[in-house]
Amino acid sequence: MRIDIISVVPALMNSFFEHSICARAAKAGLVEVVFHDLHDFSEKKHKQVDDYPFGGGAGMVMAVEPLSKCIEFLKSEREYNEIIYFSPDGIVLKQGLVNQLSLGENLLFICGHYKGIDERIRERYVTKEISIGDYVLSGGELAAAVTADAIIRLIPGAIGDESSALTDSFQDGLLAPPVYTRPASFDGMDVPEVLLSGHGKKIEEWRHEQAVLRTQTRRPDLLD
Amino acid sequence: MRIDIISVVPALMNSFFEHSICARAAKAGLVEVVFHDLHDFSEKKHKQVDDYPFGGGAGMVMAVEPLSKCIEFLKSEREYNEIIYFSPDGIVLKQGLVNQLSLGENLLFICGHYKGIDERIRERYVTKEISIGDYVLSGGELAAAVTADAIIRLIPGAIGDESSALTDSFQDGLLAPPVYTRPASFDGMDVPEVLLSGHGKKIEEWRHEQAVLRTQTRRPDLLD
Repeated sequence: MRIDIISVVPALMNSFFEHSICARAAKAGLVEVVFHDLHDFSEKKHKQVDDYPFGGGAGMVMAVEPLSKCIEFLKSEREYNEIIYFSPDGIVLKQGLVNQLSLGENLLFICGHYKGIDERIRERYVTKEISIGDYVLSGGELAAAVTADAIIRLIPGAIGDESSALTDSFQDGLLAPPVYTRPASFDGMDVPEVLLSGHGKKIEEWRHEQAVLRTQTRRPDLLD
Repeated sequence: MRIDIISVVPALMNSFFEHSICARAAKAGLVEVVFHDLHDFSEKKHKQVDDYPFGGGAGMVMAVEPLSKCIEFLKSEREYNEIIYFSPDGIVLKQGLVNQLSLGENLLFICGHYKGIDERIRERYVTKEISIGDYVLSGGELAAAVTADAIIRLIPGAIGDESSALTDSFQDGLLAPPVYTRPASFDGMDVPEVLLSGHGKKIEEWRHEQAVLRTQTRRPDLLD
């Protein structure tokens, strides 16, 4: 899989892609993440990429020209399964969509900044608009990193133990049960006895019960 | 405001806090973000902080001892408005919660990794569990960065134009209207005429209509 990311501050994402599971997956040749600095596609003297909004008001808008140029260039190099723009008014990201995106070969991510990108870019190029949640961030870079991380960890081989991703929250429609490790007793708090029993079937049952209970209590909406 | 972040890979977040609005806010003395490497609180020979889960199964669990030691140390230095653990089974983050958290003085963020942290830490110390969305990430670091960014940009002075944050999506219960900037005509695509009219009241009306329309079409749930 290849993920191209267009941003006005690609450096913001560097350390994330250098240290996380994404770095490991890249080293293993499972994914290639390539940043594109939008400033490189500006024809203005000072490499400006934003301008005042038509109609006035607060905040700057990312201009149509450098973005169009950058996207056209990338599209001439490969075909994208999706061209994704991150915005609070996009589809809210859920695990199902992540699973689906993880099957793609080439993804193009556009990170907005300031007040957003010129609407005409969304109309002409963007195939999917994604919001990672109902809150506002200072830019799309974190949304891109979040989406990339969620996708990349699903690529077989990206995380050490493949069965690990399958037992995650959401994959079976339930939240994950509580986890414990040594010591069995810590400052008056003990690990539930069943987990120390060595009785595989009982442990599985307990975990399923806990997962259901936790989902009922915290996220009944997931059970609908 | 001060935000302490406990992590097993704090380096993962470096570039984000060095380049974003958070860096600017820190330079202006509006916020202090301090990373704590959990390994520094391990008493094991190889500074190990995780262990196999009781009851078996895939993935490692962050152990209770180093986490407890780190949290106790931080709590001895200051009082926290909230001790937040990022987990898919937490309360789903929304702008309202972000607004509320932005009023705090000291926040402590705990980033999980692997299969999560020992449940006893959650029972004893954590005052709020937050999920940034219904998807699984390889660690809590991105969730911490997302939450910090959403909070910090609300601190007065953190973003250039304060009115900018107030006109964001969600703050008035509506998605933001489309934005456009120069040129007025690009490759056959024109900016809506009203935005070029210079007629302030009509522009306001158009923007409100578009915001309502966009919310009705894309996120009718926000209007309930």
